[in-house]
Amino acid sequence: MAHDSTRFHDDAEGDEATTGNRLSIPSGAHESNRAPFAIERWMVRKLLSLIGHPPLTLELWDGEVITGDHPDNTYQIRLRDPGALYQLLSNPNMAFGDLYSSGRLDVDGDLPDLLTMLYQAADGAREHWPAWIRKLWDSHTPRSTGIDDARSNIHHHYDLGNDFYRLWLDTAEMQYTCAYFEEEGLSLEQAQLAKLEHVCRKLRLQPGQTVVEAGCGWGGLARYMARHYGVRVHAYNISKEQLAYAREEAKRQSLDHLIDYIEDDYRNIEGQYDAFVSVGMLEHVGTSHYDDMADVIHRSLKPDGLALLHSIGRNCPRPMNPWIEKRIFPGAYPPSIGEFMGLCETQSFSVLDVENLRLHYAETLEHWLARYEANEEQVRAYYDDDFVRAWRMYLAGSIAAFRASSLQLFQVVLTHGTNNEVPRNRKHLYQSPAAPEDA
Amino acid sequence: MAHDSTRFHDDAEGDEATTGNRLSIPSGAHESNRAPFAIERWMVRKLLSLIGHPPLTLELWDGEVITGDHPDNTYQIRLRDPGALYQLLSNPNMAFGDLYSSGRLDVDGDLPDLLTMLYQAADGAREHWPAWIRKLWDSHTPRSTGIDDARSNIHHHYDLGNDFYRLWLDTAEMQYTCAYFEEEGLSLEQAQLAKLEHVCRKLRLQPGQTVVEAGCGWGGLARYMARHYGVRVHAYNISKEQLAYAREEAKRQSLDHLIDYIEDDYRNIEGQYDAFVSVGMLEHVGTSHYDDMADVIHRSLKPDGLALLHSIGRNCPRPMNPWIEKRIFPGAYPPSIGEFMGLCETQSFSVLDVENLRLHYAETLEHWLARYEANEEQVRAYYDDDFVRAWRMYLAGSIAAFRASSLQLFQVVLTHGTNNEVPRNRKHLYQSPAAPEDA
Repeated sequence: MAHDSTRFHDDAEGDEATTGNRLSIPSGAHESNRAPFAIERWMVRKLLSLIGHPPLTLELWDGEVITGDHPDNTYQIRLRDPGALYQLLSNPNMAFGDLYSSGRLDVDGDLPDLLTMLYQAADGAREHWPAWIRKLWDSHTPRSTGIDDARSNIHHHYDLGNDFYRLWLDTAEMQYTCAYFEEEGLSLEQAQLAKLEHVCRKLRLQPGQTVVEAGCGWGGLARYMARHYGVRVHAYNISKEQLAYAREEAKRQSLDHLIDYIEDDYRNIEGQYDAFVSVGMLEHVGTSHYDDMADVIHRSLKPDGLALLHSIGRNCPRPMNPWIEKRIFPGAYPPSIGEFMGLCETQSFSVLDVENLRLHYAETLEHWLARYEANEEQVRAYYDDDFVRAWRMYLAGSIAAFRASSLQLFQVVLTHGTNNEVPRNRKHLYQSPAAPEDA
Repeated sequence: MAHDSTRFHDDAEGDEATTGNRLSIPSGAHESNRAPFAIERWMVRKLLSLIGHPPLTLELWDGEVITGDHPDNTYQIRLRDPGALYQLLSNPNMAFGDLYSSGRLDVDGDLPDLLTMLYQAADGAREHWPAWIRKLWDSHTPRSTGIDDARSNIHHHYDLGNDFYRLWLDTAEMQYTCAYFEEEGLSLEQAQLAKLEHVCRKLRLQPGQTVVEAGCGWGGLARYMARHYGVRVHAYNISKEQLAYAREEAKRQSLDHLIDYIEDDYRNIEGQYDAFVSVGMLEHVGTSHYDDMADVIHRSLKPDGLALLHSIGRNCPRPMNPWIEKRIFPGAYPPSIGEFMGLCETQSFSVLDVENLRLHYAETLEHWLARYEANEEQVRAYYDDDFVRAWRMYLAGSIAAFRASSLQLFQVVLTHGTNNEVPRNRKHLYQSPAAPEDA
């Protein structure tokens, strides 16, 4: 495992938010032992008002508690120093995560619940924001996803180390994408295998067919397809750590004669296949490269082949959360459903099926967070406390984003516009449970 | 029945294509007894080349047969006079239908097959068209779909007379939209009832719920929902003839206590409902009014309600076929999947499910055409021969458009972005056949 805890702080600069939008911070802002000024109390109330008067109080560095206009005080946020307040005011989307990571902001109670409440309150309130607030809080330029930058973006996140991800992902196939909780009460392992099965059924895989996978993670889908459907798979990825694991695992399971794990960018996919599949990669492609993606699918899919794209998305276009983009997923951008369909339109693909699994991702993340928290001591042994808290924030914030419908999860099946060999109905997806009885 | 055969010719002006794009027609062009000029033979070959060298010959007015570069001569088109050739060159999309209607163009062999072949050939070739050809052949401005124009648009088509539509639609519920042939070999009646059942299942209707329907046709879906699901329905339509039939039929079936058929525009829908449904109306809304449509859904759907929109669509934006828009469906425009999702985005709806039933519409239309042709003598008794041929062309051309993937059929389920009471999976759509055993 790469114990590279410095990576997480690669461009954090001390106390200030690093977005370029910042209020000038008055002298004395960092002195956590002084009493709040009247204007600071006023600003806290203003902040509560701007995010829609949620049932929330803010405790300041000297212990003073500021309440808003909401009758309930279900949730509490504590700010440890005046600087934390100014950063929060300057860009709450960016600062909340950084302040939480460094321990200068803390919360009482359940973190996902509090964040869900904040997301919902802010979503309802944002249409009333003045233009300058919108500009201040929403501005963020995600990193490039060109063929060279993509490598460093992916390295930043996916090469944190297989041991790290093993601490909290499912033990069945190391799936770092939304599971399919087709029924209540499934284990994470069952639901991840159900997702793999659901994807295979949507692709109508037949023994002997060929499949190309763009962005294969630790290779679990490729192995599932080879094992259960007897297909040959070319699986592309640019994360070295993931590929090393994927190859080893395929060999261990004696599936390596059916799978080629290829270290290369999706734009370099070669050959023609019966199926094209990409689960959880489109988020990293970036809308400016959707033409490339559509072109790759168009040239690598046989005339009667089916393609499946599985991606986090949105109900309408919105800037990526800047903290997640900067600290967790460089270059990431979840497309709106319209942008997603725009990708399909550039090659006149026929969209056959769209399924939205939003709440399945909230449930998946709840499992991940629970396992992560149960293993925090092990994470702390590798990284520092800031890292531990940052990843807790990322997982909890993601739960909140899916619960509050700020994020969606779209599974889209498409084919060439000219393909008339399309399935008559979707009945066969449901003829038996997709989840194994135990896993 | 309104024997208003003049309506069909309301703005046709003699021999010329009426799109405003026309070549100047040389003197003698209308003399069908003269020999073709060399330049006319050249133009026929050019036309065959522009539409991609299909396996087609053109027989000219003097019996001379022009073959293109394709080795097979599977299909033949006959032109009765020189003017027909010039109209075809000027705007084939517009002229083909008019010339066929008036008998100045005829075809040998199966009309849907020939048109499918033409669509496929032209689709493959259009990317090579020079810009001026594209401008000449694609330009067409559809009529307005504002609240006043919508009435006359709908009157033009849907008030042709219930007796006319009864000649060739299903006898179960007079459905003038895509059926659901969930299995091979269903009758039209079974498949139309299966469509109604499929829609109800997608909406998860429960007894006692309320539903609003925008554009209810002859009211069959409203009656099905009331009869089989015990819901109360407000069904809106602006076609008088259809509403008269719908009300009479609801009374006859003792369902009138559950259904209000309301003669009004969808923009005037009032109240809040558990479900919003619109089957085959979005094609008449026009993209400039999608905001209105989204606004209506947003204000008339309860917080946990589901909405279903069923509409003809496209894989990417393309101008409406001008002949269909002008002669058959004034104001009609099938949205691309991206434009459809754009409608959903304007109110941040969460798109839950998209199903593409393209080939089901080809099959539906094959049934309609067969019944129509079997009853042509009755149509001819009401209207004139041009009308009979025009509707044959419209039905055959629509079969071809769906087979060639020029048109799609999207069923979209959506809900408020904030609704967390969404179905976990789509299994219940498939727990039993949607089609009755006999119908």
